[in-house]
Amino acid sequence: MPDTNLPSAALIDRLRTILGPRGLVTDAADTAPHVEDWRRLYRGRTQAVLRPASTEELAAVVGACAAAGVAIVPQGGNTSMVGGAVPAEDGSELVLSLARMNRVRAIDPVDLTLTIEAGATLRAAQTAAQEAGCLLPLSIGSEGTAQVGGILSTNAGGNNTVRYGNARDLVLGLEVVLPDGQVWNGLRRLRKDNTGYCLRQLFVGAEGTLGVITAAVLKLVPRPRETAVALCAMASAEAALALFNRVQTHDPASIQAFEYMSGLGLRFVLKHIPGVALPLAAPAEHYALIELATPRPNAGLRAILEAVLETAMEQGEVLDAVIAESEGQRAALWKLREEHSEAQKREGASVKNDVSVPVSKVPELIRRATVACELLMPGIRAVPFGHMGDGNIHFNLEQPEGMDPAAFLAQDHAIMDAVCAVVRDLDGSFSAEHGIGKLKPYMMPDWRGGAELALMQRIKQAIDPQGLMNPGKVLP
Amino acid sequence: MPDTNLPSAALIDRLRTILGPRGLVTDAADTAPHVEDWRRLYRGRTQAVLRPASTEELAAVVGACAAAGVAIVPQGGNTSMVGGAVPAEDGSELVLSLARMNRVRAIDPVDLTLTIEAGATLRAAQTAAQEAGCLLPLSIGSEGTAQVGGILSTNAGGNNTVRYGNARDLVLGLEVVLPDGQVWNGLRRLRKDNTGYCLRQLFVGAEGTLGVITAAVLKLVPRPRETAVALCAMASAEAALALFNRVQTHDPASIQAFEYMSGLGLRFVLKHIPGVALPLAAPAEHYALIELATPRPNAGLRAILEAVLETAMEQGEVLDAVIAESEGQRAALWKLREEHSEAQKREGASVKNDVSVPVSKVPELIRRATVACELLMPGIRAVPFGHMGDGNIHFNLEQPEGMDPAAFLAQDHAIMDAVCAVVRDLDGSFSAEHGIGKLKPYMMPDWRGGAELALMQRIKQAIDPQGLMNPGKVLP
Repeated sequence: MPDTNLPSAALIDRLRTILGPRGLVTDAADTAPHVEDWRRLYRGRTQAVLRPASTEELAAVVGACAAAGVAIVPQGGNTSMVGGAVPAEDGSELVLSLARMNRVRAIDPVDLTLTIEAGATLRAAQTAAQEAGCLLPLSIGSEGTAQVGGILSTNAGGNNTVRYGNARDLVLGLEVVLPDGQVWNGLRRLRKDNTGYCLRQLFVGAEGTLGVITAAVLKLVPRPRETAVALCAMASAEAALALFNRVQTHDPASIQAFEYMSGLGLRFVLKHIPGVALPLAAPAEHYALIELATPRPNAGLRAILEAVLETAMEQGEVLDAVIAESEGQRAALWKLREEHSEAQKREGASVKNDVSVPVSKVPELIRRATVACELLMPGIRAVPFGHMGDGNIHFNLEQPEGMDPAAFLAQDHAIMDAVCAVVRDLDGSFSAEHGIGKLKPYMMPDWRGGAELALMQRIKQAIDPQGLMNPGKVLP
Repeated sequence: MPDTNLPSAALIDRLRTILGPRGLVTDAADTAPHVEDWRRLYRGRTQAVLRPASTEELAAVVGACAAAGVAIVPQGGNTSMVGGAVPAEDGSELVLSLARMNRVRAIDPVDLTLTIEAGATLRAAQTAAQEAGCLLPLSIGSEGTAQVGGILSTNAGGNNTVRYGNARDLVLGLEVVLPDGQVWNGLRRLRKDNTGYCLRQLFVGAEGTLGVITAAVLKLVPRPRETAVALCAMASAEAALALFNRVQTHDPASIQAFEYMSGLGLRFVLKHIPGVALPLAAPAEHYALIELATPRPNAGLRAILEAVLETAMEQGEVLDAVIAESEGQRAALWKLREEHSEAQKREGASVKNDVSVPVSKVPELIRRATVACELLMPGIRAVPFGHMGDGNIHFNLEQPEGMDPAAFLAQDHAIMDAVCAVVRDLDGSFSAEHGIGKLKPYMMPDWRGGAELALMQRIKQAIDPQGLMNPGKVLP
């Protein structure tokens, strides 16, 4: 990777001229939230946070930095789980905040498209869709803070991927400022357009290393009118998979989410989170949370869910189940799933693995990775949960009871390696949703090496030959 | 673009050694079908057609050609509408046929994935899916001949894009032989995998100019169990769009196809195709063909369709409608749509435009492009039809009655320009489904020029620096 230059005082002046007084922040107190990541894994330094208000301003500052050979870290809501938006410790990189570029440019409920700037929060985008009678079918925990540009740059997933795909699948068009300051206006809202290489899919998921996404055309869907949610107790992960397959074969277009939880994970939630209760007669070792939804009027989703669960109970797949009778009950069932991370935090130290395998191999992953971790460290407590319908399990490991948290965390790499060895044997991925960022580039040669990594490096070199865009992220 | 070399006798010998006697064809009679495109727009020459039986053989021949600086034209079923798989006239390029690489490598009805080699026909892939109780949701007219590799390299669309997306949306993983003969094994079957740049989407739609797709993991869906098809007569294209919007808002997940036909186009079918009849009381100037489908048992699709059509008739959108009562009637309704091209051929000479616009602008496209062509040539007959639900209209123009076909075809560029001017004004695309091939690279600078085309050229240069992969296609 080529060397980059430190920002000179002259460059900072030039950037201030372009951006105006509101557009450039140098005060340490103001830049502080921009130099540390959400998980507090990394703390960098920067001379300035650049806050352009328009694509033209953004292009001008990127062009000025390119001319000066100064590197840039594009930053959305700064909610990365892998340090994807922190600047380097040496202060050589400028942070480029998209926060002021947050306008809805257009929305069309017939086309089912939303054209929106990168700095809008995901929630603002969802709200804009809702006000037009539509749904933006992407939802993640950080949606109140995470921004559209970051969501796309990291190809966010979430609970509804099983139905609507990842962020990548929702993008029809992009506007991107390239590393040399040129603007590519690819804000097309076409469902079919075979005119050369599919550039948009290269920038989606590139984590800001190839350019800065400044606006996007997102696909919307008609808003669901009916919902049905069930919590099911099961004897095994295999039974949970069988149930998923049963629902999917029955009415795949209605599956809004299909989440897996372990018995231990749910016990942690019941133990640590106030005001939650298990709405079943007896606890189990495995659970599934199913949500069906559809815009179809009078769809009878509840009857569909009941019919599927009845058969599944006859077949012994489901031990017990409850269907939400109200919006309050629906929220209560989801709370059992959503509080998993918080409950694990309160139980003690934990090591997180965001992994995926082919859907059919999820039960084998859960079984084998649990054994592997228990062999490594007696007393360790596996708490797998997450998006079974996508094959994406958050395979978290809780410290043995009574162990010193620091001593446990000192073993984090050994634990991650034990999980990853199983994932690899099952043709899985070491990063399903969270991406690579600054945390995982070292894993790329081992997992994506050879022709694949070489191709990525050639593309990086072709598009960002000076290596100015988000250095040190994604590629080793 | 760099110069390539003519294949030497030594290279041909080397390739014959790699491929064996069945794997290399030089006889003119045997190579003839490989040097001309389906529409007979181009006729090239080649010294040999290479027919590897495995990825290893294919990689070895690509490597040998790269070492010799000889160019290659990857070829599937050779059904391109834009001359995408024909070799150059000067005989400098070798044709690489995928036809012998046609195995199903794996199929998994729980994962809903099919791993298949590039040389399998689309129909063979559909059949493999069907035998596993699933549906490969991609269907195009040439599916009996077109091959998986070609379908992906051209990002094929078809009638069901409105529901399942384009070929691009069905690809989870790829195996690709790169221009230097290296193999990239990206045959992952993961629904979530955020580990670096999304290389597969770069090769999909690249028309063989960046490497050779040798195998793919395709998404399947559960097979529909119930279908409902209706033909509707309407007073305007606006009414057809309103009906589409009505069905979409009502039950989007059931829309399998939503096709538009003009009154004139249907009259041509009734006039020229034996054994077809209009199953409505009176002809109209606009028609929509709607297919709903779902795996959901006892879905009552017919009742859903009747309810929507009843409201649409009350609102004056639909003048008359018929719902198929049997599989035979369903086929008869679809025949009215499928025979459009053949009927136009029998009526006389025609000029084809495969264009797209945002869905909401289809009625405006039809109205304005019709006027533009009539102004250009009095008596010309616009016959727009196609995938209204995707905004993709085949805007074909039939010669004026009694005009000399050759004189009409001599005006083809002026006619295409008249249509394209409207398409452009509506933020549309000059190639929705068919791609660029050899026919349309000259249009790229005007439509995709500036930063976009420059990016494509940089990527081409980075991945295929010798310019050996399908020269003269896609990029000008």
